[in-house]
Amino acid sequence: MRFATYDDGSIDGRLLVVARSGSRAVDASAIAPNLLAALQHWQACETPLRRLSDDLEAGKAAGAFSFEPARCLAPLPRAPQWCDGSAFLNHGRLMAQALKHAPIPDFDTIPVVYQGASDDFLGPHADIPFVDEDGGIDFEGEFGVVVDQVEMGATPAEAARSIRLVVQLNDWSLRTIAMREVRTGFGFLQSKPSTSFAPVAATPDELGSAWRDERVHMNLLIARNGERVGSANGGEMAFSFAQLVAHCAATRRLKAGTIVGSGTVSNADRAAGSSCLAERRIIEMIEAGEARTPFLKFGDRVEMQARYSDGREGPFGRIDQKVVAAR
Amino acid sequence: MRFATYDDGSIDGRLLVVARSGSRAVDASAIAPNLLAALQHWQACETPLRRLSDDLEAGKAAGAFSFEPARCLAPLPRAPQWCDGSAFLNHGRLMAQALKHAPIPDFDTIPVVYQGASDDFLGPHADIPFVDEDGGIDFEGEFGVVVDQVEMGATPAEAARSIRLVVQLNDWSLRTIAMREVRTGFGFLQSKPSTSFAPVAATPDELGSAWRDERVHMNLLIARNGERVGSANGGEMAFSFAQLVAHCAATRRLKAGTIVGSGTVSNADRAAGSSCLAERRIIEMIEAGEARTPFLKFGDRVEMQARYSDGREGPFGRIDQKVVAAR
Repeated sequence: MRFATYDDGSIDGRLLVVARSGSRAVDASAIAPNLLAALQHWQACETPLRRLSDDLEAGKAAGAFSFEPARCLAPLPRAPQWCDGSAFLNHGRLMAQALKHAPIPDFDTIPVVYQGASDDFLGPHADIPFVDEDGGIDFEGEFGVVVDQVEMGATPAEAARSIRLVVQLNDWSLRTIAMREVRTGFGFLQSKPSTSFAPVAATPDELGSAWRDERVHMNLLIARNGERVGSANGGEMAFSFAQLVAHCAATRRLKAGTIVGSGTVSNADRAAGSSCLAERRIIEMIEAGEARTPFLKFGDRVEMQARYSDGREGPFGRIDQKVVAAR
Repeated sequence: MRFATYDDGSIDGRLLVVARSGSRAVDASAIAPNLLAALQHWQACETPLRRLSDDLEAGKAAGAFSFEPARCLAPLPRAPQWCDGSAFLNHGRLMAQALKHAPIPDFDTIPVVYQGASDDFLGPHADIPFVDEDGGIDFEGEFGVVVDQVEMGATPAEAARSIRLVVQLNDWSLRTIAMREVRTGFGFLQSKPSTSFAPVAATPDELGSAWRDERVHMNLLIARNGERVGSANGGEMAFSFAQLVAHCAATRRLKAGTIVGSGTVSNADRAAGSSCLAERRIIEMIEAGEARTPFLKFGDRVEMQARYSDGREGPFGRIDQKVVAAR
């Protein structure tokens, strides 16, 4: 099943089921008013939602309409928690150099995950506002999972069974501020503005064989102002989503709808490019002695889309956002 | 006005207005179903809530009943964000020694604030579960404020005007895990289980002159198994709540209901004691060469209550929780 959320003026938006073609959708709010409610009542909602999805695919869903991603909020405009990992070791090691901090202890064996704000996620075509251009404005292309409730101390196997949806996202970052915040040990706060999401959240079965080992084996194509920045593959995570979820639930229960992110998708193969500018800049530093790629400015446009290894479009749709001045 | 939240089976609970005596309350759900909704619609709700509060004080509120703090959830069982500062420099400097990390750069001039989970706050008498006793279980006595929406880039003066409520809380911590997490730079996640709150959230005017300079000038009495640990005063914050809120809103808007915490209340005067065990332990290390106070074990009880400088009880009521084994 594929879900999206239209803006109806409410905090959580209105639930849609989207067809595999990506061109049709149907209002599902008679089953659950919004995606958060569907996740909170998954046992009751799953079967009727799947029936509605089947009807939509068969062209039999009453009231189906043309799907407009530009009208979408994030699939979950708010979530109970947003916990974002750094599971691509290639990215983490390059970022330690970029942010000039000491290598993280046990980075290969214990996941690092930061707690992000989860109350104000942006939709795929929403302008992303910044108060100025000085903070080192950067994108971070990622995959994520949305879980059902998870008990405190859940094992990775239990965590794997809790995964309900897969999402694609841009975890906007302010690198100049991050460099200061990482030194405090208190994590990222000012350096993490609202995270943005591709329009469609998909159940793992929608990804076919591209979902295995609790990883998204798809390429994340990223362009800045139309120019390719990267197409790294999500399969290279050192920790699976099951391991990341279990890490987050080690000392607390997770509520249904919690989102856990992969961290910036990154491959050891440099031909894959990068999923953020900071990584590209540090590679330029290493290879050519200076960072030539500037951070983002007002008016810059960032596009992200996941593709299967054979080039077909993934289920999540496209993020296409413009950086703008706040107010 | 003073508010509390009874458990009615819903995520956000049911809104009560509580009398200044602390012994009577009245259901306010005809005005707003819960405290989060009241904050989201403060312009519309403030006057009728104040009228209901006045009626309750005058003994004229229909349906008033005996207030039972043991039935309370946290005033906000979930909030859009939970951002917790470390505004008591005495605490921060001692904790740098306790967690064995380098002094935080610009600690005196730029607030440090971590992003906490805000989806699962515990009530004042809820047992607090841990999977084991090995993590260095500790409490942290704090004050906090609940804000209306705050625009990105708000000044401290604008932030001050957004403060709607004052709360008292226990930011439970796992010190052994914190020592590892602070080194990653990614902040606290596993080291921060659910935060617990005293039953009553009060508008700043309820505190009288104890609310000034956007600080809570009250003593926070803390006992472990009935034995005093500290009674530090909240007035010694190096950064006001207005400054902390502005810090949190520097690069993002805050939604109504966001909670910003002071960090562990701490005074340079050692006679005040401590508001957490880690601070007490590092003082023991400094003064006597070894930490004698153990961290918490299953069955230990933690009580917290704010008092005015003349000894009168503060408006927040009492936290009284027991540490238990999860599941």
